[in-house]
Amino acid sequence: MNDRRQKLAQLVVQYGVALRPDQDVLLVSGTENLELARVVATECYRAGARFVDLMFLDTAVKRARVEHLKQEHLSYSPQVQRDRFLHIGREHGARISIQPHYEPGAMSGLDPMRAGLDQVAGIEALHEIIEMRTTNWCVMPGPTRGWARTVFPDLDEEAAYEKLWEQMAWVCRLDAEDPIAAWRERMDGLKAVGDRLTERRFESLHFEGPGTDLTVGLFPSSLWKPARGDTVDGLTYQANIPSEELTSTPDPERVEGVVRSTKPLELGGTLIEGLVVRFEAGRAVKIDADRGAEALRSKTTRDEGAPRLGEVALVDREGRIGQTGTTFLNTLLDENAASHLALGSAYGELVEDDAERARANDSAIHIDFMIGSDDVSVTGITREGARVPVLRGGSWQI
Amino acid sequence: MNDRRQKLAQLVVQYGVALRPDQDVLLVSGTENLELARVVATECYRAGARFVDLMFLDTAVKRARVEHLKQEHLSYSPQVQRDRFLHIGREHGARISIQPHYEPGAMSGLDPMRAGLDQVAGIEALHEIIEMRTTNWCVMPGPTRGWARTVFPDLDEEAAYEKLWEQMAWVCRLDAEDPIAAWRERMDGLKAVGDRLTERRFESLHFEGPGTDLTVGLFPSSLWKPARGDTVDGLTYQANIPSEELTSTPDPERVEGVVRSTKPLELGGTLIEGLVVRFEAGRAVKIDADRGAEALRSKTTRDEGAPRLGEVALVDREGRIGQTGTTFLNTLLDENAASHLALGSAYGELVEDDAERARANDSAIHIDFMIGSDDVSVTGITREGARVPVLRGGSWQI
Repeated sequence: MNDRRQKLAQLVVQYGVALRPDQDVLLVSGTENLELARVVATECYRAGARFVDLMFLDTAVKRARVEHLKQEHLSYSPQVQRDRFLHIGREHGARISIQPHYEPGAMSGLDPMRAGLDQVAGIEALHEIIEMRTTNWCVMPGPTRGWARTVFPDLDEEAAYEKLWEQMAWVCRLDAEDPIAAWRERMDGLKAVGDRLTERRFESLHFEGPGTDLTVGLFPSSLWKPARGDTVDGLTYQANIPSEELTSTPDPERVEGVVRSTKPLELGGTLIEGLVVRFEAGRAVKIDADRGAEALRSKTTRDEGAPRLGEVALVDREGRIGQTGTTFLNTLLDENAASHLALGSAYGELVEDDAERARANDSAIHIDFMIGSDDVSVTGITREGARVPVLRGGSWQI
Repeated sequence: MNDRRQKLAQLVVQYGVALRPDQDVLLVSGTENLELARVVATECYRAGARFVDLMFLDTAVKRARVEHLKQEHLSYSPQVQRDRFLHIGREHGARISIQPHYEPGAMSGLDPMRAGLDQVAGIEALHEIIEMRTTNWCVMPGPTRGWARTVFPDLDEEAAYEKLWEQMAWVCRLDAEDPIAAWRERMDGLKAVGDRLTERRFESLHFEGPGTDLTVGLFPSSLWKPARGDTVDGLTYQANIPSEELTSTPDPERVEGVVRSTKPLELGGTLIEGLVVRFEAGRAVKIDADRGAEALRSKTTRDEGAPRLGEVALVDREGRIGQTGTTFLNTLLDENAASHLALGSAYGELVEDDAERARANDSAIHIDFMIGSDDVSVTGITREGARVPVLRGGSWQI
């Protein structure tokens, strides 16, 4: 276990964020991942970090907030908490987030609307520092016993925890002799597919499958890229470990139809299952689910951009996460097992043209939900109206 | 255990800080006290807190800092960390600190000078918010297994941990039917002795005992008070739980002689034993110890006020901490078992006269060290030069 923690921490610090000497680091972690956070912070100092700000989130304390806070305080957070994020942006620091922040299902029995309003203090500043493009950052997984129990309910706790760590080590390619080289190779492969997608300049993508018939408009200059980013200082980082997706920024005004989520969504402790979203003129006008719909609905009332799309991402079946066959009930993992959309903020760097980039969606939220599977076909629609197969049975056609 | 945690947390939140609805709280805790911190934060929200900022400190991460940081970064901390303290001062919030922040002896094997330079990020703003007098605050103990092992090295770990919790529950008067009423009664008794001491207006105190011959000058308007404070909003709080001391602010220019510490001092993970300090014209001109002296020496170079006294405190033998016979190797406990001094910042509210208060010591540090025992006599010197016994054999003579 300690060996895996160490390897994962080194991969994230040396390759994921690619930490430079003298950077300040914001490390966000649930208290359940205290031991992993400790190893990551230690690796940061070993790599020359100047200061690591440990932002620990605790499931029981969040429950106490949701239970006891006055309604008007649920969305309050002090400016100084936003400043912990902004400091990293302004000082060209690094950010590492260990997922999950809270134990899955941690909010069960509480009012999902209240649970949805209560978010990580200060995180509303996140889109601002992402826009600055001064921060090298990486979101990484941290197996917990609670998470393992939810993912493998038929195993006893220790066996479940061990199996989750095993799968995590495999999907993070820690088994490779040189995990960093293995990641570089996979990312280069994805980049080549992304370049071909970008060249086609599709007018929109059409998703078709059980319960899904959705058209997502693209900008003429939308780019398709793997989860590698560059800071304004020219530092390359991998924003997610693991990552298997090709991402683009959709036109937030041109999304039409209905989409059924293909995996459950874990949202700040609330599990949302059987999610169905209907879009009209780009706006999510109807959000239903077998359970937990309120938690997502309350997030989409946050601001003007919250009910519109900020991301569309395609995932093929060659990635390791899909191959495990496991539903991890965690966005970082599950979004990399299946094509997905995100409500809320867009990645501006995925639109080339300045005028079009100004039209990309803006919001304080960014919530991914999975819509892809082998049964969902993805078709590109050209400016001339031709239909070009993109994904069939989970395999690239392009 | 859970029951004691709950009782201690309720005592601290309801009586120690006397939390008001809608206050923000800064909760500082070592990660070893995660479970207690969780219960304290929950009690804060139950009492109507608006936001609890969890500031967790981790021993392993501090070791990594001291080991790997460039020398020039050891005393660096981002402004935003100071702002976490200042926010509480400006917003009339509350502050709770669970001691110890780090495991005792946590810095063993590392350079004590480097360990001394590396302090809790942002804590240099603490004296500023104490001066504002807008914050109700309380320092409380949190037993850890590492601490218990050091205090009771002859017991096995579980027995040591249980014994430490037992003694902690007793010294915190959790055995009383109404712990809050028990504390009010003890504090009222101490206040009466303090009022008599204040009335004598001693020119100085003379400490005499093995290795100690020290005269500590007092201001004409120095006040003697138990560890109860009032905010500018008129809120009364008890700054330490447990607390058995009567405290005053000395004249930082008039301290002469030599003093030998009567208990080991735990300073940010370094254990200082056999400490001997020589004062001339108020200044600590020589700091020696059997071990760990460097850790204290490096603190006293921090600023102009660091090598001068900011506090003198008297403790009688009727307090419960002394009665346990245990040396807890922790200032919160040990300072309340014995009379003590502190290098660094003074409590301005313990000087009545404005001009004299302006002369009280100012520093970014505040480090208590114990100088009292039944073998150390304390004598008050009047303005006329008469000698009045104050403490003999640990009992009040006044």
